[in-house]
Amino acid sequence: MTRSFSNFLLVSSAAALFSTVALAQTPRVFGYADFSQQAKWDAAFMPVPDAKLAGEHLKTLTAEPHWASSPEDHKTALYVAEKFKAAGLQTEIVPFRVLLNKPVKIEIEAFDAQGKKLMSGPTPEHVDPKEYGGDSFQDDPRILPAFNGSSASGDVTAEVVYANYGTLEDFKKLDALNISVKDKIVLVRYGANFRGVKVYIAQQRGAKGVLIYSDPADDGYTRGDAYPRGPFRPASAVQRGSVQFLPLYPGDPETPGIASTPDLPDSQRITDPAKMNQPSIPSNPLSYQDAAPILQHLDGPLSPREWQGALPFTYHLGGTASVKVHMHLEQDYKLRTIWDVIGKIPGDDPNAWVVAGNHRDAWVYGAVDPNSGTAAMLETVHGLGVLLKQGWKPKRTIVFGSWDAEEEGLMGSTEWAEMHAAELSHAVAYFNTDVGVAGPNFDASAVPSLKEFVREVTREVPSPKGGTVYDQWLNDQHEGAGRRKAPARNRHDANAEDVQIGTLGSGSDYTPFIQHLGVPSTDIGSQGPYGVYHSTFDDYNWFIRNADPTFVYEQQQARVFGLEVLHMADADVLPYDYKLYGSEIGSYLTEARTRATEAKMQVDFSAAATAAKRFAAAGERAYRLQSAPTQGVDAAPLNAALRNAESALLNDAGLPKRPWFKHTIYAPGEFTGYAAVVIPGVNEGIDEADNARTQAQLDALAAALNRSAAILEGAAGL
Amino acid sequence: MTRSFSNFLLVSSAAALFSTVALAQTPRVFGYADFSQQAKWDAAFMPVPDAKLAGEHLKTLTAEPHWASSPEDHKTALYVAEKFKAAGLQTEIVPFRVLLNKPVKIEIEAFDAQGKKLMSGPTPEHVDPKEYGGDSFQDDPRILPAFNGSSASGDVTAEVVYANYGTLEDFKKLDALNISVKDKIVLVRYGANFRGVKVYIAQQRGAKGVLIYSDPADDGYTRGDAYPRGPFRPASAVQRGSVQFLPLYPGDPETPGIASTPDLPDSQRITDPAKMNQPSIPSNPLSYQDAAPILQHLDGPLSPREWQGALPFTYHLGGTASVKVHMHLEQDYKLRTIWDVIGKIPGDDPNAWVVAGNHRDAWVYGAVDPNSGTAAMLETVHGLGVLLKQGWKPKRTIVFGSWDAEEEGLMGSTEWAEMHAAELSHAVAYFNTDVGVAGPNFDASAVPSLKEFVREVTREVPSPKGGTVYDQWLNDQHEGAGRRKAPARNRHDANAEDVQIGTLGSGSDYTPFIQHLGVPSTDIGSQGPYGVYHSTFDDYNWFIRNADPTFVYEQQQARVFGLEVLHMADADVLPYDYKLYGSEIGSYLTEARTRATEAKMQVDFSAAATAAKRFAAAGERAYRLQSAPTQGVDAAPLNAALRNAESALLNDAGLPKRPWFKHTIYAPGEFTGYAAVVIPGVNEGIDEADNARTQAQLDALAAALNRSAAILEGAAGL
Repeated sequence: MTRSFSNFLLVSSAAALFSTVALAQTPRVFGYADFSQQAKWDAAFMPVPDAKLAGEHLKTLTAEPHWASSPEDHKTALYVAEKFKAAGLQTEIVPFRVLLNKPVKIEIEAFDAQGKKLMSGPTPEHVDPKEYGGDSFQDDPRILPAFNGSSASGDVTAEVVYANYGTLEDFKKLDALNISVKDKIVLVRYGANFRGVKVYIAQQRGAKGVLIYSDPADDGYTRGDAYPRGPFRPASAVQRGSVQFLPLYPGDPETPGIASTPDLPDSQRITDPAKMNQPSIPSNPLSYQDAAPILQHLDGPLSPREWQGALPFTYHLGGTASVKVHMHLEQDYKLRTIWDVIGKIPGDDPNAWVVAGNHRDAWVYGAVDPNSGTAAMLETVHGLGVLLKQGWKPKRTIVFGSWDAEEEGLMGSTEWAEMHAAELSHAVAYFNTDVGVAGPNFDASAVPSLKEFVREVTREVPSPKGGTVYDQWLNDQHEGAGRRKAPARNRHDANAEDVQIGTLGSGSDYTPFIQHLGVPSTDIGSQGPYGVYHSTFDDYNWFIRNADPTFVYEQQQARVFGLEVLHMADADVLPYDYKLYGSEIGSYLTEARTRATEAKMQVDFSAAATAAKRFAAAGERAYRLQSAPTQGVDAAPLNAALRNAESALLNDAGLPKRPWFKHTIYAPGEFTGYAAVVIPGVNEGIDEADNARTQAQLDALAAALNRSAAILEGAAGL
Repeated sequence: MTRSFSNFLLVSSAAALFSTVALAQTPRVFGYADFSQQAKWDAAFMPVPDAKLAGEHLKTLTAEPHWASSPEDHKTALYVAEKFKAAGLQTEIVPFRVLLNKPVKIEIEAFDAQGKKLMSGPTPEHVDPKEYGGDSFQDDPRILPAFNGSSASGDVTAEVVYANYGTLEDFKKLDALNISVKDKIVLVRYGANFRGVKVYIAQQRGAKGVLIYSDPADDGYTRGDAYPRGPFRPASAVQRGSVQFLPLYPGDPETPGIASTPDLPDSQRITDPAKMNQPSIPSNPLSYQDAAPILQHLDGPLSPREWQGALPFTYHLGGTASVKVHMHLEQDYKLRTIWDVIGKIPGDDPNAWVVAGNHRDAWVYGAVDPNSGTAAMLETVHGLGVLLKQGWKPKRTIVFGSWDAEEEGLMGSTEWAEMHAAELSHAVAYFNTDVGVAGPNFDASAVPSLKEFVREVTREVPSPKGGTVYDQWLNDQHEGAGRRKAPARNRHDANAEDVQIGTLGSGSDYTPFIQHLGVPSTDIGSQGPYGVYHSTFDDYNWFIRNADPTFVYEQQQARVFGLEVLHMADADVLPYDYKLYGSEIGSYLTEARTRATEAKMQVDFSAAATAAKRFAAAGERAYRLQSAPTQGVDAAPLNAALRNAESALLNDAGLPKRPWFKHTIYAPGEFTGYAAVVIPGVNEGIDEADNARTQAQLDALAAALNRSAAILEGAAGL
């Protein structure tokens, strides 16, 4: 309670900071010899991002369904380009041609043992207009039937096995219970891992098809009132989504590592489906309304009780003739054109880029995901435009990206990043936002070198709840601690008392930047109860009823995002914290060593541990140097070293089975997808108890840490 | 796993023990100078209790609904009396006249804000005959409509508030949320406390009525398959039950402390309802089928998420005009005759009784509750009958009781115990069984002085799962430990590595014996998944499908119960363990002192703590003396002291607000009902942060412990 009170005092001073340009005192900010000039630009920027305008952007962007490559998607590209231009950005629309599937026919039927039809779907998404006003967006004829991006076409009929969340552990549990999924259709619920991973494992085990449904226990009535009464998923709402094998690589399935520019010759495309990141079996999402009749009629053994969801019957595992499902999916696969919108603000250094991006395409209307982020980004750009008119020119070049086809597998960002791999090899940061605003709770993930940077900018932005964004963020996490465990992804953060910042896994556009190219990245957004993810109901109506009726969190998001860009573009010395990075890597290694010991593996951690210590020591020396920058002294060599130290953590060979992922410290897990695996080569080697592989990956990690340490040592004059 | 293996070896030897009368070696058993003669009687007894005969008893006893006081109940009394007599017991049917309500009209209706009818019930209990064969017992016209024993009559209409389990904590949470239950009908779910306590608290807060439903999260489809597919509660099944204010006193509401014999003059009956243990507001149980339309239409605030059950909608708190419920209950209250069956085996000492009992009356058919216990008890009696024919005569007098009207509030046992208070003041034990067999998992509760006694007899009985009952019991608890916390009631047991034995709370017939009269008691039974408690479906069909198809657990139960009786009747020295009793009381006091300190109370524990130490030390000395009984030496003075040490723990003034409860160490909690509160005077004083009351109760406790210690010291010759 004392903490809250002192936060309140902090708030008032922070609010005061932007109520007047005259600053009594300028705070010391990491990376600046003198923050006073930056403080003035910050103060000029802060009042510009406008809640009402953000609301207007959101309304315009979400007026129509705008699936990637559709004419409506192109309209949103034109809108964003217009706003970029209006702010004074050098703007272009950059097209790519990527392989996308569009559903032609989606038919799912279920029959009982006597052949009686149990369901025939998918049922269109619909809420009753008599209930709480219904939803005026739901009947648009341009809404595609709910489908999975990257699903194969297929016409299969099979018995059904229920596999809970479809994690590797769940499939292993079925093995232990002697339930085979071979030649079955696997029914899984959303949650716990990335949907493409569910299909990846099911396919490896010989399943004929996969159905993925949303259980009300996870984002429906159990969590709270369903839309339109509340924010959670109603009976008919379906979570669309890509089942691409994202942990292998993202982007256009036919062009890993190269850009799918319109003029790319077909000869450069992969043609062997076995080498692609695409499932070979059909899969489709279902509402619980459509899944319930299937699940209810399964017999076979009682499911483990922790597999029971919230549907009003007892879940069984199936695998018998009690239910047969017929899935007939026709996917129209072809190369389709998508459109990134790129806006540049040239800086003094044309070669040092600060990239900030958000995707624009949506499964349907995409109010929260992603256009709450787009609306905020447009107001960030609006703010920077005002600075440009006031004569500001950033030290570094700023590049905004409005990515397309993220939903299909990070396509717009991946293809653009692959096109600009050379420039990005020395880009100083990538700032991502995807869901900009789903509610009032700010949250972030970042590489350790940028965690303190994110905390710092949030201390400058007032929260609509009072205090600063930082204060409220801390408050949320401390309040939440009583009710739930701290998320596992945060357990390595050395500053345990401070706000915890997550680890970058995958599932959004930072992946090509950090994990393929080594650009230090962050991902920010404001969260809340949000049960309509990837359904028709993620629309403007839902947003103004549930997420942010007055768009004040949109304004907050625009400000935090803007300060990230401003500070990274203008700092004297790049504000990377390699001290924290070093200590986190040290704890990753300690934990991996414990796991290897428990698995009785024969691997030698000593070289990696020594390298990690060297890296941490070099990081600490660099941090001291960064903490006292001298005005007038050329910071360029130090900055180059700081940036190259991250690149040095890439291993050009990439990870086993997935060479596109080159970062030695972070990757999406092969069997998690969304969630990061830290020191992935090492940890996934341990998962498979593979001594040789683990040792090779430890060696590669040691080499990377030594390379990076050497660069930092060079900068510190050692 | 090593443990299981060694258990298996133990099993074989235990099984061998009873496969031949010739015993190679006789174990040392607490209370016996020489166990060899007892071992022979045990060996003669063990083969007699018969699985098939137990099944026949059960089938006969549960052939018809036999609600207490009904003609069918009387038929079961005659059957039990006949079996007692056949075994050679001195048998009598003992009638009492007690106040019982029988439902004349039970009408529950719900309406929405527009007056549209949402439900009209109660709906008769029914499962579809097409599903897994249905149930042939369900349509008997003698089944009473589901009702609450002790409910008031009433015709009330009111808005509805949902109060979760209706615990004190739940009602306090409603207070914190500014939801008043005054003049409302409170809808609560079964679980967490005794149903009478739900009504007790609701009435205190001004509610007009109470509806109590069974949520499928607690004993329905969430737990596993519903009947007839599996053992859990189907949609229409209702948990009947008494809402008597049992924590005030049990038994005939009009005669606390005295026996309701047929000739008791009316002048000795209480006539002031305010002084009785009866609610003044109407209450009724509901199936979830009938409760769902009410709960689903409640608006008002979202309920705390942990209050959400498993019905397929989001639970709200109500308290608004969105739903009105009309309850019209007409209860025919009158003095009705009930019939205990008492069977005696006179021992050498006619004044030292070993009492063993089980109730016989049922809400409907009562296959599990209580007649699985009755069937087993009849096979115990069968076994003792065979011993009698072989010339056995027990040292002490054995009394079997087949109690009536337990379901209405422990009436048959309480009235009989009150009638025999003088004899029972020196009865050496009361052994209870209620649910004898609901499944394969043996469990027990006991006063600490009899915990080791229970463990000992279970080591002599083979389990149908292999090994002894004791082995399997230990195994269940260790297996369960991975999945669930050890039950809180067991946390005081000093032998933490051994099987944990519960504390006696209330809800069955041991209450008058231990808590009113100070007769050392145990309660045993074999548990399992059992979701049809107090519904029509607790019948013979359910039992043979789910609990014990071949009646081998009935046989086990008869054997364990029989060995309890045999050993207690024939031991040289009474096998009470006051050493453990002392250590448990010590830990109760330590915990209470911590609670008082946390509540910043001004109370002095020193006298009580000193007395507890004295009691423990005396107990330890007595234990040493008991451990080495010498054959031929008169054990009578030691035995008298051991027995009187328990009586000395009674406080004649009883507990504050509830003088009928006289035991200073154990009582049902005023706000829990089923669950025991230990050193109840002290702990409930602390609950209310009442310094004076707590201090007075500490003083009474100290006095009781000193009295008891002095008796034990006397016996030990100190």
